[in-house]
Amino acid sequence: MAPLDGITILDLTHVLAGPFCTQSLLDLGARVIKVERPGTGDDTRAFPPFMAGESAYFATLNAGKQSIALDLKQDADRAIFDRLLARADVLVENYRPGVMDRLGYGWTVLHARHPRLIYAAVSGFGRTGPDAGKPAYDMVVQARGGVMSITGETGGPPVRVGASIGDIVAGMYLAQGILAALFQRERTGEGAMIDVAMLDAQLAIQEHALAIASATGTAPGPTGARHPTITPFATFRAADGFVVIAAGNDAMFARLCDTLGLDIAADPRFATNAARCDNHALLKRLIETVTLTRPVAHWLEVLDAAGLPTARVQNMLEVLADPQLRARNMILPVAPHPGGPAFTAPGNPIKISTLPDQTALPPAPRLDGDRAAILAWLDGAEEVRGRTPGDKAL
Amino acid sequence: MAPLDGITILDLTHVLAGPFCTQSLLDLGARVIKVERPGTGDDTRAFPPFMAGESAYFATLNAGKQSIALDLKQDADRAIFDRLLARADVLVENYRPGVMDRLGYGWTVLHARHPRLIYAAVSGFGRTGPDAGKPAYDMVVQARGGVMSITGETGGPPVRVGASIGDIVAGMYLAQGILAALFQRERTGEGAMIDVAMLDAQLAIQEHALAIASATGTAPGPTGARHPTITPFATFRAADGFVVIAAGNDAMFARLCDTLGLDIAADPRFATNAARCDNHALLKRLIETVTLTRPVAHWLEVLDAAGLPTARVQNMLEVLADPQLRARNMILPVAPHPGGPAFTAPGNPIKISTLPDQTALPPAPRLDGDRAAILAWLDGAEEVRGRTPGDKAL
Repeated sequence: MAPLDGITILDLTHVLAGPFCTQSLLDLGARVIKVERPGTGDDTRAFPPFMAGESAYFATLNAGKQSIALDLKQDADRAIFDRLLARADVLVENYRPGVMDRLGYGWTVLHARHPRLIYAAVSGFGRTGPDAGKPAYDMVVQARGGVMSITGETGGPPVRVGASIGDIVAGMYLAQGILAALFQRERTGEGAMIDVAMLDAQLAIQEHALAIASATGTAPGPTGARHPTITPFATFRAADGFVVIAAGNDAMFARLCDTLGLDIAADPRFATNAARCDNHALLKRLIETVTLTRPVAHWLEVLDAAGLPTARVQNMLEVLADPQLRARNMILPVAPHPGGPAFTAPGNPIKISTLPDQTALPPAPRLDGDRAAILAWLDGAEEVRGRTPGDKAL
Repeated sequence: MAPLDGITILDLTHVLAGPFCTQSLLDLGARVIKVERPGTGDDTRAFPPFMAGESAYFATLNAGKQSIALDLKQDADRAIFDRLLARADVLVENYRPGVMDRLGYGWTVLHARHPRLIYAAVSGFGRTGPDAGKPAYDMVVQARGGVMSITGETGGPPVRVGASIGDIVAGMYLAQGILAALFQRERTGEGAMIDVAMLDAQLAIQEHALAIASATGTAPGPTGARHPTITPFATFRAADGFVVIAAGNDAMFARLCDTLGLDIAADPRFATNAARCDNHALLKRLIETVTLTRPVAHWLEVLDAAGLPTARVQNMLEVLADPQLRARNMILPVAPHPGGPAFTAPGNPIKISTLPDQTALPPAPRLDGDRAAILAWLDGAEEVRGRTPGDKAL
């Protein structure tokens, strides 16, 4: 039995933070019913890149979910939604604060009507504070939350983190909150309301930068691909790309010098981490005079043999072929719809003994594609677990 | 009652991924007992920056935990650890795969002895696959997982994400796994084993980059602070810093042009998003001729009044003063030890109706500082919830 076996999630969210959250819960065994806007559905259905007219972005974030299109301002659809609420364990939404209340589906109303229902909301700035209700995008909270100020070249302009961590980290905290509320409900019988703000989530992942700012009164800046306080701990140019070399202490540095054939471990300019930090630019040039002579694959092999942590700076095509990620079932095919294209999506990063890994994912739903099955389920049919992970036949 | 009220976590982890995970669970009401190496304890006790001899890094990642120092190779300390295991709900460790087995505390042994115990492990590459057991650091998995290849200036070298998301995202997935296992245990009575790899976690947060690579066969590169497929959606220079301008569609672009006094909304070079993407460099120069004339605060005000998402690119000192984050209890004082310094740490980003927000955090523990209280608890005394969130008196 999967951890979330039997749990039904009504998912009113679109784009990224919310769908990312519910995809994680689906990976743990929950059934996710997307309640989409009739006509267009989740905005990401129209997001590039496309294959055979289908969005790869949508397909990878919604594999295995079910879809029903409902207009929550129409009585007939509201009646269906009310019946879904009566059967659901969790409602997830990412409207701006106030929208669900105006629809008559605010937390207070729903909690009175369905005391076990868990209500989970994610928004840019949360439901309280002076900026509650203002619009936000990923880059808005990356900028305001500080991560851009510590990302980029030393002395250069701020850089956005290439992955959309403004949305994703918020979605992950929302999933944690939902899981905590499910656990608590088992003990108390009562649901809870969860309010996650993308900006709060950005602050929560600042560890050393926040510690530095609060302890020293100085704001740290970006340091490119170099660790700010450990040297050498950075990327270095090889003949055909970049390799990470991370020597965390003097013993590892001595081993690194041996491995590279550099007779500098005892040089006073490099003998301690503090000295290496002071002379990091010179040390980088010395190391690169060696690393530039051979390809990345060579350095990975010799550094690995010396027990030194290392990695290639992989682009996404290299990532998709990575043997370790493939062995861990982290790069999975998404089964195509009839006649449709096959996509690739991430596997479940939470390996848990009660849940065998998936080796392939079911397709993402067509807009409103599960309406009949969902209505039959509401009428008392056996639960149709359509494209949930347990059912690979579909 | 907090969601994790009454849950005891034995935390054998050090540095970042593990302590970050257990801090999240403590924020939700769990009691966390750090089992530390005698003499030195968690490595981060020696990490800069320091205030009055105490590490700000350690203080902010361990606020409210308890500490006992145990040598798991000594019989007397093993006996204490065995008694702790019998009382604990969750064991968290971040040794390399195999270390706990050699100590006689592997999952199989512990599961037979304590069937309800949840065993949660985080490591660089996980317990399976060709690279299981190899050493990793944050930058190693940032590089190998692909995020560095999409972060940085267009055409420039790869850049590390300033926050340690290699560790942090893994810690967050571990917390999700633990919460899912706690929920499942309420229904089955049985614990589970969780295996999270830092590399897997990095892959899991790639959304559009993975979709692009798999759908197009082309690896995306970094795009600085600019969104790759929406324009204008980037940082722009103001008189005294950078401001994010994010106009997601033609209507918003027209409103932006009005707001900036730029008569270009109907110009064919900028009339559609596709055209704006083609001419993004020219458009950036046109926008900056306006934005450079006034400070960030001015642009925040007028863009906000126009309903356009915007933000200052804040450094960490500005983040620490942010009114919205302060109103959300996201920037909290850590109470000092007697005579010690006061630190600042992030609050709980999971706002949940069953748990009032903290407005101040208790201190992180001294090494072995809770030994007597923990031993008394094992001997049957009332649970000493020392520095858990529920107890602000300490």
